[in-house]
Amino acid sequence: MSQLLHGIAASSGIAIAPAFLLVGSDLSIKQKHSDDENHEVARLHDSFVLTQKELTAISQHAHQSLGARAAAVVDAQLKMLNDYPLQQEVETQITNNHETAEYALQQVADEQMNLLSRLNDNDYLHSRATAIQDVYKRMLAHLLKVKLPTPADLNHRAIFVAKNITPTDMAQFDRRFVAGLVTNEGGRTSHFTIMSKTLSLPAVVGTGNATDQIHDGDLVIVDGIHGKVIVRPTDGEVDHYQRMAGEFAREQAAWGALRNEQTVSTDGRHFQVVANVGTTADMTDYQQSGAEGIGLVRSEFLYVNQSKLPTEEQQLQAYKRFLTGVHEQRVVVRTMDIGGDKQIGGLSLPHEDNPFLGFRAIRIGLARPETLRPQLRALLRASVYGRLAIMFPMIATVEEFKRAREILDEEKRKLREENVPVASNIEVGMMLEIPSAAVMADVFARDVDFFSIGSNDLIQYLFAADRGNRNVSYLYQELHPAVLRTVKKVIDAAHAEGKWVSMCGEMASNPLATPLLMGMGLDEFSMNGSSILHIRSLINSLNTRQLQPLIHKALRASSAQEVQQLVKRYVPKVD
Amino acid sequence: MSQLLHGIAASSGIAIAPAFLLVGSDLSIKQKHSDDENHEVARLHDSFVLTQKELTAISQHAHQSLGARAAAVVDAQLKMLNDYPLQQEVETQITNNHETAEYALQQVADEQMNLLSRLNDNDYLHSRATAIQDVYKRMLAHLLKVKLPTPADLNHRAIFVAKNITPTDMAQFDRRFVAGLVTNEGGRTSHFTIMSKTLSLPAVVGTGNATDQIHDGDLVIVDGIHGKVIVRPTDGEVDHYQRMAGEFAREQAAWGALRNEQTVSTDGRHFQVVANVGTTADMTDYQQSGAEGIGLVRSEFLYVNQSKLPTEEQQLQAYKRFLTGVHEQRVVVRTMDIGGDKQIGGLSLPHEDNPFLGFRAIRIGLARPETLRPQLRALLRASVYGRLAIMFPMIATVEEFKRAREILDEEKRKLREENVPVASNIEVGMMLEIPSAAVMADVFARDVDFFSIGSNDLIQYLFAADRGNRNVSYLYQELHPAVLRTVKKVIDAAHAEGKWVSMCGEMASNPLATPLLMGMGLDEFSMNGSSILHIRSLINSLNTRQLQPLIHKALRASSAQEVQQLVKRYVPKVD
Repeated sequence: MSQLLHGIAASSGIAIAPAFLLVGSDLSIKQKHSDDENHEVARLHDSFVLTQKELTAISQHAHQSLGARAAAVVDAQLKMLNDYPLQQEVETQITNNHETAEYALQQVADEQMNLLSRLNDNDYLHSRATAIQDVYKRMLAHLLKVKLPTPADLNHRAIFVAKNITPTDMAQFDRRFVAGLVTNEGGRTSHFTIMSKTLSLPAVVGTGNATDQIHDGDLVIVDGIHGKVIVRPTDGEVDHYQRMAGEFAREQAAWGALRNEQTVSTDGRHFQVVANVGTTADMTDYQQSGAEGIGLVRSEFLYVNQSKLPTEEQQLQAYKRFLTGVHEQRVVVRTMDIGGDKQIGGLSLPHEDNPFLGFRAIRIGLARPETLRPQLRALLRASVYGRLAIMFPMIATVEEFKRAREILDEEKRKLREENVPVASNIEVGMMLEIPSAAVMADVFARDVDFFSIGSNDLIQYLFAADRGNRNVSYLYQELHPAVLRTVKKVIDAAHAEGKWVSMCGEMASNPLATPLLMGMGLDEFSMNGSSILHIRSLINSLNTRQLQPLIHKALRASSAQEVQQLVKRYVPKVD
Repeated sequence: MSQLLHGIAASSGIAIAPAFLLVGSDLSIKQKHSDDENHEVARLHDSFVLTQKELTAISQHAHQSLGARAAAVVDAQLKMLNDYPLQQEVETQITNNHETAEYALQQVADEQMNLLSRLNDNDYLHSRATAIQDVYKRMLAHLLKVKLPTPADLNHRAIFVAKNITPTDMAQFDRRFVAGLVTNEGGRTSHFTIMSKTLSLPAVVGTGNATDQIHDGDLVIVDGIHGKVIVRPTDGEVDHYQRMAGEFAREQAAWGALRNEQTVSTDGRHFQVVANVGTTADMTDYQQSGAEGIGLVRSEFLYVNQSKLPTEEQQLQAYKRFLTGVHEQRVVVRTMDIGGDKQIGGLSLPHEDNPFLGFRAIRIGLARPETLRPQLRALLRASVYGRLAIMFPMIATVEEFKRAREILDEEKRKLREENVPVASNIEVGMMLEIPSAAVMADVFARDVDFFSIGSNDLIQYLFAADRGNRNVSYLYQELHPAVLRTVKKVIDAAHAEGKWVSMCGEMASNPLATPLLMGMGLDEFSMNGSSILHIRSLINSLNTRQLQPLIHKALRASSAQEVQQLVKRYVPKVD
């Protein structure tokens, strides 16, 4: 009898292969104290050097076989190991308390972890904690002379099964041998999930107990489309999933053929399907994704994980890479969208009771224009390298937009006075993510060149529900008529003034929302690279005129569920 | 030369009298350690008993001369003193560390204060901290044999000047001798401010340094209308303010005459101006306020500051008091509006990163209906004592309202089966405070009996700005066209279905908003008792038909500032 596990469909595709269990080694500490201080310090130093070597080797492997993004995480760990006054802290602990190197290291590590866990829970800190933990684990293994299990041990195609997979585990993958991934932990937005999408590895995460249910060598089917794992499948199940894998491959090939086509509905309406990018490393996958430009550069990557604010020059180099990487297509850069839930080096931000309703994004930029000006100057200087558009996040009032645009114009004037070339065709728009801006869209539309609807935040504010809070995340409803009415209002207001509208939240890549957004006249869909070809293929198959009765009914519906049923009735192909 | 101090106009009216400085005594501790443990424990016990006696006397005075509300705070302190394992903690400190009673007490007090300050900053915890501090101060004074300055020392009319005035200070007031109040600290919503309004004492708070600028016995004018304090005024200034005081008294008298009239615009449109109430103690001032009913009972008072959830019986008694206190007028009770920013005894609520976007109000009620049902049963049982309306807070979707109403109907059915009488005319409505509900107002209007617009929250969510966060509070704009458009949409949607609309946020008592709300057709204005007669007098002087050009222009304006100018142009009398 086969066994079925359920999890989150993290990266789509089907894989059928034997399981390879990546389970933790015993790193428990036997000896806590030692009187030979010098010996312990020497052991500590050795483990330090060995870990450095090990991480350097992993980084080189990752650079060669997996690309810059996979390697970046390991490089960050190396930097952490080298920069951090860790060695000194552990030495002090050894000397003061007569502890063994391993015990002293563990004490320091625990303290660090405690500190991080007391800070707000967010993705950045979580990934930092994972990285620190990995560094400590490697040092400890060297001290205890324990060999850690490593994905590099594998020499045949297998499905990796683990409690969790760290970025460093991932960086050691040999693409030839990894068929798919199954983990106990993890969610839709964890680094690991994003990487498996980039590497096109079928993955199911958050299964809870896969490592207990699957044994090393078990045949396993990973259904990354539906979030299922079949352990020890029957022959019939293997046949079924082999057929499904074939269909999936054909679909992928068909989508791939769209790469150099335009996105046009069957009634001849053009749409843009563009990419959201988070760092310059994302540009590696850009061509492959089939994107027709960049609809959102999240400039935050320049700010987080840094000890001080990025210089104008550093920013210029980054923006130039995006602009030169897209060949004449448009690149929309969002100015820094940061706030009190992330502490940014060089910006001392106050603690806030409700950071999502707090001092963030353009609110910081306008209150402390010295933080905004270098970014705008860098963008203006980069503008000559391509087709740049700039947008301001968290705009709530017309005054805010006007003031931000004024600051931009001031910097433009200054640069021209300094004879620095600046493009003359830069479009200036805003994120439409705050309800007041949607209510006033007709007034804003006179002043902006475009709107980019930030559906993630807009929906959170519309329903007054933090989607990261599991007690209220049920209120995050992309298909709710309140969302559709709001989006429709924004699109109509923009079009009345001849302006265009993009959407860069997750809703833009939700296939159930595609017919609705097309029918309401959204001009641009911006999303993660992995969804682009799917959505382009869907748009190519629909007729905007025929969607009008659906739109009419959806706007008059009373619940998201009702809208979902309508979409399925009118457009049976989506799911 | 006189001196002018600026502060916050906390309670209106003019007072002219000599200053009485209520400054702190020296409570510094000289001796920290003692080896006579038994002696210290005995001293501690004495201070305990003396403080109990002192607070009991203050409570009795407050009950007799100031009413239940002033006394309630002192009673809470007494309860704290008796219930809290304070004495034991201090004793342990004395025994373990050989400390003097005063030093041990201070250590325990500091720890308590630290603990409270680490919790979220909110009004409830703040008032709890103030109460604890007052108890400790009194005990410490007894231990050090220092006499605390007390308002009861006064035997002539004077203006009290202090850094801050605690509820316990206030409870000692002799109304005959207190002419007005000036403090360095405090804000619009502090307990002290609310109490001065209840007692109709002119007050200016938040002056920063009044206690440095004013000397005991100085003649002082408190202008609680404009938030000014004139120290050592000239004869001319005294004359000027005496005239102003006369006008103020005449205005008050004219407003007082409205108490038994109806509220009707000059073109004959009826409006209801009703009261927001927070506890049953508020009913003491109800008749005086000129309210035409209760538009909001904040039922939270039954939950906060309690060690467990209130029983159905306790709730019934409270609701009965409101209903019987209003003589056939309507009483709208809001079901519990609590969440993760307040810890409620008997409800274990999770910590949240963004409590305003979190698990609160009806979201808790629907997820844990066992908390909602006793409240609904109590309300249904109370309904026979008057004209009850029930409303649910934080409704974001139609499903939520329907589900809440279903639970109400289930409890109604059960009570009838138990032969418990329930009124047949209970109106059931909802707070309109979440943007999605405003967007869907036309759909909601079919199901509700009424909307009550919670402008405070609605504005916060519309602009995605926590008004308690001083970095973004500038975005809390009651007159912004985004707010007006949203309110208009809600009113129109309700009227199209023959339903009525109230507003119970602060905007309802903002005189600048009154002409706009009247012109848009708001049916009911619900506010704190102290504003009712002013707003009623304003409504009586305006013509809704003549306000239509103002409404037309305000809805097309692009900023709150523009709307404010429009109001002042069309309705010069408001300010």
